[in-house]
Amino acid sequence: MQMNDLIVKKRDGGALTTEEIQFIVRGFTDGSIPDYQMSAMTMAIYFRGMDRRETLDLTMAMMHSGDVLDLSGIPGVKADKHSTGGVGDKTSLVLVPMVATQGVKMAKMSGRGLGHTGGTIDKLESFPGFSTAIPLEEFFHNVETVGMVIAGQTADLVPADKKLYALRDVTGTVPSIPLIVSSIMSKKLAAGADVIVLDVKCGSGSFMKTEADARELATEMVEIGKLAGRKTVAVITDMDEPLGNAVGNALEVKEAIAALSGEHPGELVELCLTLGGCILTAAGLAPDDGAARAALEAAIADGSAKRKLAEFVAAQGGDPDAVYDPSMLPAAPVQVEVPAPAAGYVRHIAASDVGMVSMHLGGGRATKESGIDLSVGVVLHKKVGDAVAAGESLATIHAASGERAEAAARELAACYTIAPERPERKPFIKAIIR
Amino acid sequence: MQMNDLIVKKRDGGALTTEEIQFIVRGFTDGSIPDYQMSAMTMAIYFRGMDRRETLDLTMAMMHSGDVLDLSGIPGVKADKHSTGGVGDKTSLVLVPMVATQGVKMAKMSGRGLGHTGGTIDKLESFPGFSTAIPLEEFFHNVETVGMVIAGQTADLVPADKKLYALRDVTGTVPSIPLIVSSIMSKKLAAGADVIVLDVKCGSGSFMKTEADARELATEMVEIGKLAGRKTVAVITDMDEPLGNAVGNALEVKEAIAALSGEHPGELVELCLTLGGCILTAAGLAPDDGAARAALEAAIADGSAKRKLAEFVAAQGGDPDAVYDPSMLPAAPVQVEVPAPAAGYVRHIAASDVGMVSMHLGGGRATKESGIDLSVGVVLHKKVGDAVAAGESLATIHAASGERAEAAARELAACYTIAPERPERKPFIKAIIR
Repeated sequence: MQMNDLIVKKRDGGALTTEEIQFIVRGFTDGSIPDYQMSAMTMAIYFRGMDRRETLDLTMAMMHSGDVLDLSGIPGVKADKHSTGGVGDKTSLVLVPMVATQGVKMAKMSGRGLGHTGGTIDKLESFPGFSTAIPLEEFFHNVETVGMVIAGQTADLVPADKKLYALRDVTGTVPSIPLIVSSIMSKKLAAGADVIVLDVKCGSGSFMKTEADARELATEMVEIGKLAGRKTVAVITDMDEPLGNAVGNALEVKEAIAALSGEHPGELVELCLTLGGCILTAAGLAPDDGAARAALEAAIADGSAKRKLAEFVAAQGGDPDAVYDPSMLPAAPVQVEVPAPAAGYVRHIAASDVGMVSMHLGGGRATKESGIDLSVGVVLHKKVGDAVAAGESLATIHAASGERAEAAARELAACYTIAPERPERKPFIKAIIR
Repeated sequence: MQMNDLIVKKRDGGALTTEEIQFIVRGFTDGSIPDYQMSAMTMAIYFRGMDRRETLDLTMAMMHSGDVLDLSGIPGVKADKHSTGGVGDKTSLVLVPMVATQGVKMAKMSGRGLGHTGGTIDKLESFPGFSTAIPLEEFFHNVETVGMVIAGQTADLVPADKKLYALRDVTGTVPSIPLIVSSIMSKKLAAGADVIVLDVKCGSGSFMKTEADARELATEMVEIGKLAGRKTVAVITDMDEPLGNAVGNALEVKEAIAALSGEHPGELVELCLTLGGCILTAAGLAPDDGAARAALEAAIADGSAKRKLAEFVAAQGGDPDAVYDPSMLPAAPVQVEVPAPAAGYVRHIAASDVGMVSMHLGGGRATKESGIDLSVGVVLHKKVGDAVAAGESLATIHAASGERAEAAARELAACYTIAPERPERKPFIKAIIR
């Protein structure tokens, strides 16, 4: 088999066979197929696409390029969640303990992530002493006993994706549905869960700008998950403005704790109840979405979800007292308010730009080697649809210095669009695909 | 400027600016743009194409990636010829001396080429003592005094194309009109001629399978040549069967000598008169095609074209006597006839397959490092439209051993299609584009 012939086949619109796709993934992973052939192939896939059978074959071949976790020794239903990523996305910090109270075993391996803030494991390091680098035996043990674990990657999952994503990132081939689907789903399948719930964001602050694109991606991921024998559900949600109020590592942990304390109803809790409901019904632990939702609301109301978070923090070496006293979490020395330039209604908040403010404050990584400041970020007080008076605070900047705070305040003010009329309310949860 | 952004621009159907194209060619040539980005770019160009301005910019940027010959110090009109390549193509050996008799200066640098036979410079090495590796000063001197030179590449012409073609060859991006045009025309422009004539083959034995494709390629090359300030003409000719009768290095030289001796009218001479006529009229040395043709026919009839070949062979160290006594050229020890399996008319000769017979006999290179046997090959006695009796010889195999000859004879018989009815005659010269 010659890679050049396979490139020509895909270029001319042909469907690659299972054997051909396995040859490509194996050869690219072991280096016998050079990057310059793989990038030509991915560009051909960008233009010609892949049918569902090809996408499944690609996903499975990538999944098997490295370690595959076997969670079958752990009793109960194991679940995992993936988000396509957005600004202010602290969903896992709320969802995972909430669902774990209902007997679902949540086993999450996360990366550190580049961008506006750190990834989930960076955020968790706001808890004094918390460790995300835990050995695989402890990972399995905690899933079984605590019912949840969120750790840095402890196994060599899907090396093909690491290599391929790095290549796609510099060759204009990121936005291709079959390549995105196989990248995400190969990692979810390798991580071993029985139930996979996917949070697919759409809107200006996310990768999928339109609902149609988000729906196409979600549908394809759900179908691939099901064909691979996993219960898979996707929820499509709006990301035209940041999710919730906080953007920044410790600030987001504080917002998550408030949500688990029942203090903070809104989109964040709504999203977690929806995602959690999908997990419980798929796991067979609730008869329908309504019953699932009621059980999860009860877990917030009776404090069990918050206790689960504390139990989890303690199990990974952190101080559980910080769950009950968030003032123990990192805090920035300077706070500055961002006044509204005019009265009216918030029409739009440019989510990506808010993310950039957090990044400029030091809360996100520009390169893999950068350090991050867990304390800094932004807390929005006004969201789309809210009325504001002139001079009223739109948001608070949390910064390391007065100078950085002032610069960030100017940037943040520019993220807001304020108009005289109240904008039409758009639904936050756009669709559930199962 | 970031290469990834330029890939995305082309992927999305944008036109690259002059500066962007120069950045790409410069960066790819000096290695600062890696192969994996260039192959993604060429695949995007394959799908999105390039407009004429982009193709011209690419051609010029590639031309200037290395040495550019300045022939302006040599008096008279300088001309060059390029063929897109076919089986049995010995055109240069006939055309170049014929045209040189009329005062046009022919300065050709050729490569050795892979494939059925060697390139033109391999074929010329059939003359005892002939050297194709001559210094640049001698190259210029011979153009001026002899009026013609055919040499291996003595200058570093278009290094960008060497690198890019090698990449396209293994990434499925060879058949792209703007990439083919820029590859061919950058080299022709760098070689410095005032007049460029292009022999564009079409049909089963050539790269362009249909006349429409050949016409598109020819038109684009002619327009780019004119925009670059050169007189450029293309002739589209049929390559559904091999050109002329001989396929093999010394065998083709013998056929060329016969053509220059007036012994061998047919498509080969017809093609050379057409190409030569285009050169003479473009050079302003003949008032029209008819007059040009008459002058070239006279150069064959009075022996001056053949004398020019001998003069050229002598100037590059070869024995000119071999022009008058072709038995001095390499000859294979074994000749075997290929009998017709049935009576009828030759309907088709699979040109590429005939080329493979020559290659299997040892007359062509499989890799750049392979040696070639100048003596071996095939001489066809029957061409498309000819009547044959059962058992009559279709061709003679010239081989190094009886065993190889027998194998080649079986292969060659399979190249012929013989049918009861005489096939319709198709025109050999399909179009002249200027």
